[in-house]
Amino acid sequence: MNFKEKVTEYRQIVESYLKEIYLNGPENMVETSNFVMSAKGKRIRPILTLLSCDALGGKINQSIDVAIAIELLHNFTLVHDDIMDGDNLRHGQPTVHKKWDIGTAVLTGDSLLWLSLHLLKNVKVDREKIILYFIDSIKLVCEGQAYDKMFESRKKISITEYEKMIRMKTGHMIGLCSHLGALCSGANLDTQNKMKEYGLEIGKAYQIQDDYMEIYSDQETMKKSLLSDIELNKKTYMICLAYDLDANGLELILNSDKDPINKIENLRRFFDQWGIREKTIQEINNSFNRADKILESINFKNSYLSELNQYLINRRY
Amino acid sequence: MNFKEKVTEYRQIVESYLKEIYLNGPENMVETSNFVMSAKGKRIRPILTLLSCDALGGKINQSIDVAIAIELLHNFTLVHDDIMDGDNLRHGQPTVHKKWDIGTAVLTGDSLLWLSLHLLKNVKVDREKIILYFIDSIKLVCEGQAYDKMFESRKKISITEYEKMIRMKTGHMIGLCSHLGALCSGANLDTQNKMKEYGLEIGKAYQIQDDYMEIYSDQETMKKSLLSDIELNKKTYMICLAYDLDANGLELILNSDKDPINKIENLRRFFDQWGIREKTIQEINNSFNRADKILESINFKNSYLSELNQYLINRRY
Repeated sequence: MNFKEKVTEYRQIVESYLKEIYLNGPENMVETSNFVMSAKGKRIRPILTLLSCDALGGKINQSIDVAIAIELLHNFTLVHDDIMDGDNLRHGQPTVHKKWDIGTAVLTGDSLLWLSLHLLKNVKVDREKIILYFIDSIKLVCEGQAYDKMFESRKKISITEYEKMIRMKTGHMIGLCSHLGALCSGANLDTQNKMKEYGLEIGKAYQIQDDYMEIYSDQETMKKSLLSDIELNKKTYMICLAYDLDANGLELILNSDKDPINKIENLRRFFDQWGIREKTIQEINNSFNRADKILESINFKNSYLSELNQYLINRRY
Repeated sequence: MNFKEKVTEYRQIVESYLKEIYLNGPENMVETSNFVMSAKGKRIRPILTLLSCDALGGKINQSIDVAIAIELLHNFTLVHDDIMDGDNLRHGQPTVHKKWDIGTAVLTGDSLLWLSLHLLKNVKVDREKIILYFIDSIKLVCEGQAYDKMFESRKKISITEYEKMIRMKTGHMIGLCSHLGALCSGANLDTQNKMKEYGLEIGKAYQIQDDYMEIYSDQETMKKSLLSDIELNKKTYMICLAYDLDANGLELILNSDKDPINKIENLRRFFDQWGIREKTIQEINNSFNRADKILESINFKNSYLSELNQYLINRRY
């Protein structure tokens, strides 16, 4: 089976599992939770978990519960983050607080979180250890989000602060996928640690790609509002670099033009002029290269994870 | 040590533990989480946990982490419920979404939840079992809240539906206190089960008391807005009874008068007239009596739990 077929197979497994995840409960929560989970997400986290387990010789049933639980945990953060950021569009459909109301969205996020934890009850091997890793991840993702929010009211954020924040908010949960995929496969501790590091690297690259695409992609491809982070004064990789290089020039663009089309064009020009676009692409590639290096040091049963790296490098949304 | 001294001692232990619970983290979350946890709550849940452990011969250090974790879990639900219900006052101070904003309140609730789970990592005995019980409790409290919300848009809710809802939303978490207090003391399974049943009974009584006090107490004593549940069309024990006995008469009162003082007086007259006040007091007493019966069947080291029942029966806020 080639990489594309493998990913398609795993995506189908994930989708059909998610369809069954919450059928019995209060109708309002069943409806909203399923609305969220039926959206056309990329499912990169559960697929990475399954691929990691598979590449180390594990079977699907060893890691599927963990894979789905991570996807649910991820969606808990999306629903709550969308409330905080006032985002009205996600995966090409209205967000829960937009379609229903804020109270419903709060409770839907909470429900996705308990669904995630509840699913872990099915885990057969190393269950306690895995639950404890999940608890750490909930801590990190909440604290990462808190820093993200805090940084909105500050002007200058150093690249170090930014990297710490995205490591907590995005990197760690992607690291959790490859780490737990390895753990579920029965891999040894050294391999587990390497797999976690590998996930952290691609998680970092993935977040900086998102930052990049908010400027250089178009709304239709992204299926969410462009510039929404910039409008909220969120700190992206490019904005942090720009503040370092020419704070006044950047602020002039951010404050002067209300029209988003003009603003995005001015930002692109500014980023090109200061070499920020190039630097950002370089940083993304550096992380993927480090991820590749880690993968080369592990004895895999197949090459799917290296191919995943290639796939992620080339992603357009 | 008499009952009052014991409770005072435990309350002090709980308060000083809570002061230390979250000192290092993003300043915004540390601030809001501590704001919530420093409010003058009754701490009935951690005190019940500690008393249950103590009454069965356990030491404080066997159950303190669990006790505090339950209080944090409870406060997670309060912060999120207050957003959903638009409540602006809690324990005599502004709610988080009122003092800061909704996004901050969402994240603060999430933080209290991870703090709760994180604390369980300290548990030395039966940790996995205890964490799994917590996961069940998060499920039940979220689903109970979902039913509560759903019932707002329905007129007639049967007493059976109401009791199911409050068992999930309130009863179960109070049952968790006495259950886990027993488990942490090293009590046998039979005693653990009885202790859980006991907690469920006082949890039911406790919730119906809250419903009762929303009508028959005054705002200053309650330290929260009276009638707020009624205004949201929430289903209380008395409202469910009233719909059964005279739906038209009840609706006339609920819809006719905008002035809360008039409304509360009309409701009191209506409840008296239909014997609803008496029936409600009877139901509260029935639950406390059943709780007493269960306690009598257990071999305790002291009588604190029976005294707690008396204390709860007489509570005025």
